[in-house]
Amino acid sequence: MLSEFSLIEKYFSKKDQGDGIVLGVGDDCALLSKDSEYELAVTTDTQNEGIHFFKGTDPYLLGYKSLLVNVSDLAAMGAKPYALTLSLSLPEAQDSFLEPFSRGLMELASALHLALIGGNTTKGPLSITISAYGLVKKGQAMLRSGARVGDEIYVTGSLGLPGLLVDLGYETAELAAMLHKAGCRDSLRTLFEKLYPKSMLIANRCAFATSLSKYCRCAIDISDGLVGDLGHILSASGVGAEIWVENLPRPQEFLELGLEESYQERLCLFGGGDYELLFCVPKEHRAQVKQLSFEHNVALSLVGAIKNDVFTIIKCGKVVEYSDKAFEHF
Amino acid sequence: MLSEFSLIEKYFSKKDQGDGIVLGVGDDCALLSKDSEYELAVTTDTQNEGIHFFKGTDPYLLGYKSLLVNVSDLAAMGAKPYALTLSLSLPEAQDSFLEPFSRGLMELASALHLALIGGNTTKGPLSITISAYGLVKKGQAMLRSGARVGDEIYVTGSLGLPGLLVDLGYETAELAAMLHKAGCRDSLRTLFEKLYPKSMLIANRCAFATSLSKYCRCAIDISDGLVGDLGHILSASGVGAEIWVENLPRPQEFLELGLEESYQERLCLFGGGDYELLFCVPKEHRAQVKQLSFEHNVALSLVGAIKNDVFTIIKCGKVVEYSDKAFEHF
Repeated sequence: MLSEFSLIEKYFSKKDQGDGIVLGVGDDCALLSKDSEYELAVTTDTQNEGIHFFKGTDPYLLGYKSLLVNVSDLAAMGAKPYALTLSLSLPEAQDSFLEPFSRGLMELASALHLALIGGNTTKGPLSITISAYGLVKKGQAMLRSGARVGDEIYVTGSLGLPGLLVDLGYETAELAAMLHKAGCRDSLRTLFEKLYPKSMLIANRCAFATSLSKYCRCAIDISDGLVGDLGHILSASGVGAEIWVENLPRPQEFLELGLEESYQERLCLFGGGDYELLFCVPKEHRAQVKQLSFEHNVALSLVGAIKNDVFTIIKCGKVVEYSDKAFEHF
Repeated sequence: MLSEFSLIEKYFSKKDQGDGIVLGVGDDCALLSKDSEYELAVTTDTQNEGIHFFKGTDPYLLGYKSLLVNVSDLAAMGAKPYALTLSLSLPEAQDSFLEPFSRGLMELASALHLALIGGNTTKGPLSITISAYGLVKKGQAMLRSGARVGDEIYVTGSLGLPGLLVDLGYETAELAAMLHKAGCRDSLRTLFEKLYPKSMLIANRCAFATSLSKYCRCAIDISDGLVGDLGHILSASGVGAEIWVENLPRPQEFLELGLEESYQERLCLFGGGDYELLFCVPKEHRAQVKQLSFEHNVALSLVGAIKNDVFTIIKCGKVVEYSDKAFEHF
C-alpha cells in the first residue's frame, strides 16, 4: 500500500515542466505565469465508474479517456492545451491499476505537451476529475454563441460508436435480436469486448481546432449527442438549424454489423460520448476549412446549416421526427 | 428530478462575474484574462463521503467546507481568491441537498468575491472536487521551500478539534472511558452532534495570508496534522525544527471536556483537518506579524523555530517522542 506522497512521486511527478509553469506539483498550489496576449481557458470534467465507464475498464484506456474529455473542451474553444490537474479517488492504491492508468494519461499529456501541475489522490469509489488549462489568443475563442444564420455545420470524424457501446454494455434483448437478424454471430458481450477499446480511444482534435479558430467563431464538442450539443449552440446563438441525416458520418462498424438504418441514425444523432468537434463556419471559408482537414488529416462532414428559427432534421428532403431525447446527466 | 442544465442554472449560475473573468459558466471552457504583474495560483481538492466527512453531514456545512479547504491552499500561498470550478457527483439531484449545499458554498464564495466560473454535476457516490484560482504578485508566493534556519514558526487559530471529532465519530471505547473518567456526562454521539458543526466551520485565513506574504516566504495549511505538514516544509527547505508543546493552541473544548494532557497534545500535533496556517518568518518581522494578527483579528501562537538538521518536539525543556504518525491518505 502506497501513501499519497509516494503515489504522486511514483506515477505523476517530474511532468510539471513547461513554458509558463512557474511552480508545478509539490506545494499548496501550482503557479502559472500570465501573459496578457492570451486568455486562459479552464475546464473540468468527472468520470465516475458505472456512470461514465463500465466497471473493469482497462485502466490504460481510462487514463487516456479521462484526460481526452477535458482536452476535447479545450479544443472546442480553439485553445492550445497547456496544463492539467488530476483528482483521483480510488478504493485502493494498487500498482496494477495505477501503472497503466498513469501511463494512458501521461502518454496523451506528453503528446500534447500538457504539464501535470497538481492534484490529489484519495480513498473513495473510483472517480477521476481532471481540470485542464489552455491558451487562446485574446478574442479568438470559439464560442457557443458565435453561430450566424447561413453558417455551415461540420463535424469531425464519425459519430455513434460510443452510443452503440453503451447499448451493448446493457445487453438489451432488442439489440441482440436486431444483430441476430442482420446475421451477426457474435454475442453482445463479445462485440462489446471487441469494440469497447476503440470507443474509448477517441481522437484528439486539438491541433486542428487551434488552426480552425482563425476562421471559425463557433464550436462545441459532442459529449451529449449531436442534437443535444447543437441545441446548446442554437440557444446560445439565438438561431435555428437544419441537420441532413444522409451526411452524418457513420463508423465502418455500423455497416459491418448490418445495423438497421433508423437505429444507425439515432445513434449518430443522440448517442453521445463521441467527443468529436461540431463547428459552424461561414460558407466563404469552405476552402480554408477543407485545407485544414487535409493538413491535419481530420475527416470532416458537412452535416447541416444554421437557419433562422426552427430546428429540423431532414432526410431525403423531408422533415423527420425522432422520439429520442438528448442525454441527461441525472 | 432536475437535469444537469436546470441544476446548474437553478443553484450555481449568475455568480460568474468578476474582474478578469472574460467568460464564466455556460460554454465548453471558462476564459480568464491574464495580467503579467501576477501569477495564477491553482489548487484542487476532493471531499468524499465516508472519507473526508461523515454520511449525513449537514449539506450547508459541507458546501462551506468543500470550498474552504481549497481556499485554505490559496491562503497558504498568500494568493487572493479569484475564481473556482465545482465538480459535484451525487446519487440524486435533490433540492433538499442542493439548496443548502449551494447556499453554504456560495455564501463563502460571495464573502471572498470568488466567482464560480464552471464545473459539472453528475451521478455518482457523493463526492465534491473544487479547483480554486488565486492571484499572487510575481515572486511573492509563500512556498514550502522558503523556511530558513532561525525562522520562528507560527500557527493561526487553534488545533486539534477536527481530530477529536474524527475520534468521536468512530465512537471508540477508550475515548468514552476517558471522557467518563473526566466527568463528562454526554455520550460520544451527543458530543459529536454538539461539536461537529464547529469543526466544519473552519476559519478563512485569506486576508491575513495575503498581507502576511509581504514579510513571509514560507507557509502551509495544516490539513494532515501539524507534524505532517511541517514535515513537508522541512524536506522542501532542507532544514530541521523544534516544536514547543506548551505553546500549541488548544481549543476551549479540550479544557471543558477534561481531556487527558497527552491526548490533547497528540490531537494538536497529529490530528489534521484544522486548515489553519503554519508559517515560518524571520525573527526581525515579529512586530509586523503581531500587528497583522491584531488588524485581522487572527489569533497567533509561536510554536517553534526552524533549526539546522533534526526535528524535535520539546516539552518542559525535554525532547519527547510520540508513536503517532502523520495522516496518510491511503
